[in-house]
Amino acid sequence: MPTLTVTRRVHFNAAHRLHNPKLSDADNRRVFGPCNNPNYHGHNYELDVSVEGEVDPTTGYVADLGEVKRIVEELVLSRFDHKNLNLDVSEFRERNPTTENLVVAIWEILEGRLPGRLTRLILWETPRNYVTYEGR
Amino acid sequence: MPTLTVTRRVHFNAAHRLHNPKLSDADNRRVFGPCNNPNYHGHNYELDVSVEGEVDPTTGYVADLGEVKRIVEELVLSRFDHKNLNLDVSEFRERNPTTENLVVAIWEILEGRLPGRLTRLILWETPRNYVTYEGR
Amino acid sequence: MPTLTVTRRVHFNAAHRLHNPKLSDADNRRVFGPCNNPNYHGHNYELDVSVEGEVDPTTGYVADLGEVKRIVEELVLSRFDHKNLNLDVSEFRERNPTTENLVVAIWEILEGRLPGRLTRLILWETPRNYVTYEGR
Amino acid sequence: MPTLTVTRRVHFNAAHRLHNPKLSDADNRRVFGPCNNPNYHGHNYELDVSVEGEVDPTTGYVADLGEVKRIVEELVLSRFDHKNLNLDVSEFRERNPTTENLVVAIWEILEGRLPGRLTRLILWETPRNYVTYEGR
Amino acid sequence: MPTLTVTRRVHFNAAHRLHNPKLSDADNRRVFGPCNNPNYHGHNYELDVSVEGEVDPTTGYVADLGEVKRIVEELVLSRFDHKNLNLDVSEFRERNPTTENLVVAIWEILEGRLPGRLTRLILWETPRNYVTYEGR
Amino acid sequence: MPTLTVTRRVHFNAAHRLHNPKLSDADNRRVFGPCNNPNYHGHNYELDVSVEGEVDPTTGYVADLGEVKRIVEELVLSRFDHKNLNLDVSEFRERNPTTENLVVAIWEILEGRLPGRLTRLILWETPRNYVTYEGR
Repeated sequence: MPTLTVTRRVHFNAAHRLHNPKLSDADNRRVFGPCNNPNYHGHNYELDVSVEGEVDPTTGYVADLGEVKRIVEELVLSRFDHKNLNLDVSEFRERNPTTENLVVAIWEILEGRLPGRLTRLILWETPRNYVTYEGR
Repeated sequence: MPTLTVTRRVHFNAAHRLHNPKLSDADNRRVFGPCNNPNYHGHNYELDVSVEGEVDPTTGYVADLGEVKRIVEELVLSRFDHKNLNLDVSEFRERNPTTENLVVAIWEILEGRLPGRLTRLILWETPRNYVTYEGR
Repeated sequence: MPTLTVTRRVHFNAAHRLHNPKLSDADNRRVFGPCNNPNYHGHNYELDVSVEGEVDPTTGYVADLGEVKRIVEELVLSRFDHKNLNLDVSEFRERNPTTENLVVAIWEILEGRLPGRLTRLILWETPRNYVTYEGR
Repeated sequence: MPTLTVTRRVHFNAAHRLHNPKLSDADNRRVFGPCNNPNYHGHNYELDVSVEGEVDPTTGYVADLGEVKRIVEELVLSRFDHKNLNLDVSEFRERNPTTENLVVAIWEILEGRLPGRLTRLILWETPRNYVTYEGR
Repeated sequence: MPTLTVTRRVHFNAAHRLHNPKLSDADNRRVFGPCNNPNYHGHNYELDVSVEGEVDPTTGYVADLGEVKRIVEELVLSRFDHKNLNLDVSEFRERNPTTENLVVAIWEILEGRLPGRLTRLILWETPRNYVTYEGR
Repeated sequence: MPTLTVTRRVHFNAAHRLHNPKLSDADNRRVFGPCNNPNYHGHNYELDVSVEGEVDPTTGYVADLGEVKRIVEELVLSRFDHKNLNLDVSEFRERNPTTENLVVAIWEILEGRLPGRLTRLILWETPRNYVTYEGR
């Protein structure tokens, strides 16, 4: 059977602040610029979740993307959407919520929980910035 | 000379919380749902700024959209982009930062400051929600 | 209070066939071309639903777009999404499901049922074709 | 019968230079900035052509958008697409090819030639700049 | 010479029904949900066709994307666009027209027929669902 | 540390003409069609610049995309944006400015100059045509 990748795009929005408590305030401002605003700013995130596998001869699906959507909503969106990533999401109590750390955290949540093998996440922070992670 | 409308689209992102201090906490949660999160959430906003006028026979422009962009950046984006609308933007000390109130506040800032007559603002809060204001 | 227009964009997909039973088969093919395929074809539709009103001083909303979404889902999407417009939707037993007739049918369903005054529908049939109706 | 607006979006790309021969070279550079480059630059243009009318009870169409497309291709795209607006398009021998002048020229070409009444043109010069003309 | 991938995006729309005749009606409804509607539904599909190769020193092209477009129109779009995939397209007499099976069928049609080596197809069924196939 | 790819999308517009002086005029017209217009045509280009690397534990970044943007603006956009690629950009005095040659030229400019390892460029010439280069 051929092997394909199927992708579901989901949306969430959140507030965050980029900040490393081990750096001085001046260094935080220098490194993170306006993203270091102590009062937070925010984004509409778009997340592409890709799973790879062979086509199931009974369904013609690699994976039921409706099921992928439900799992991502339950495990990720219910905890990240309309939240403050720094204050409301336990993964970012210790980690700086950059797009890079965000996509790795989402990988750790989803890996092994989806129908099919998770092979790629793409996370858009703005229409001009995105991060791709393939779990390596 | 013909009359046209010229539009410049600009981008900013911000955190906010929908909340009316005159309502109880329970009513705030009921009315605003997850948008009432006390820790804020956020959005990538897209703003279309439209000015109307006759075509200038010397330039062939209704308005120099580069100048429109510079003015919007100076008067609006410098104060709203990468900010917390509730805490950092004086217009929302007393006003709830809904998309509706946001677009009216931007109108009040821009009216009379642009080359040409401001006739419409469209503010996208998400790719699926937008508000249009024509100053009436 | 200022008057604004707030818009919610929703999605549905459906099969349809353009056909007028009062015309001959040859005329139907000539007028509607490949859209007359007796076996149907289909589209992903995007629908912008706009309501106009004054900003409510308590909520800062013209209308709760979450409520607009729920009503459009209940009254329109539940009946049109993943359907064959000609066979499954009663409005098109007698009416040809062109984008024009579709947007008028949606208007008739939604008028008077939304919070705020319905003032415009935009229906995209493809990324290159859309119809606008303001109820006149 | 209800009155609706139907719109077809078309694409063309072209080179141009913004320049007014009545101004000095220094003034041209000051007014038009990099758009005054004597060697030209260029754009992918998107054009929305809207016609208004009552729904024809026989077809269910305000206008056949396939026919609108063919007429716009014949009258506009065949002359503007993959062209240098200043050198190849007679309308801009004397007129500066700003987006404003371009949309007025397209209006003059299309008015009275389309099925239905031409009521609006929107011309996107970039994904962030567009001009709207309603023939007044 | 460097090796690059060039991609042409094309559009088609079609009706389909997801159904496996070897399953009971109840199982078909459970597995495919609203996509199992016996009267069909439909989509606007976007297809990205990618070919890889070295840059030809005479043309500066890996492949003439106009030629790629013409071949895809002749071999795929003429048979799939404005069609019912289940009833009108021979590949789906026996195969369930899921996006996965659709992209594999398109690969089988195009492989060896394009200038350059076909290396990837991406097929969007909706703006939120897509499938990628690299021929393995 | 996990390895990720971070991408910044930038925009420029330019005029160009596809032409090989070693071919006859007739062959140039046959090979390049309307893109061979001696007076040039033009495009809005979108360029995705991707760098790969491990997440820096201090910043949480693979690379500061603001810095990526500044370098691309300085090295590429300042020389390509609002230019005639054939006449104004030294790389295309001898090379035909196809999208393929353009993306290779941009690679040669950016390689080794960005924070992190440049691993992919995607260059969109129109919303329907793009070229991907991974430096091989």
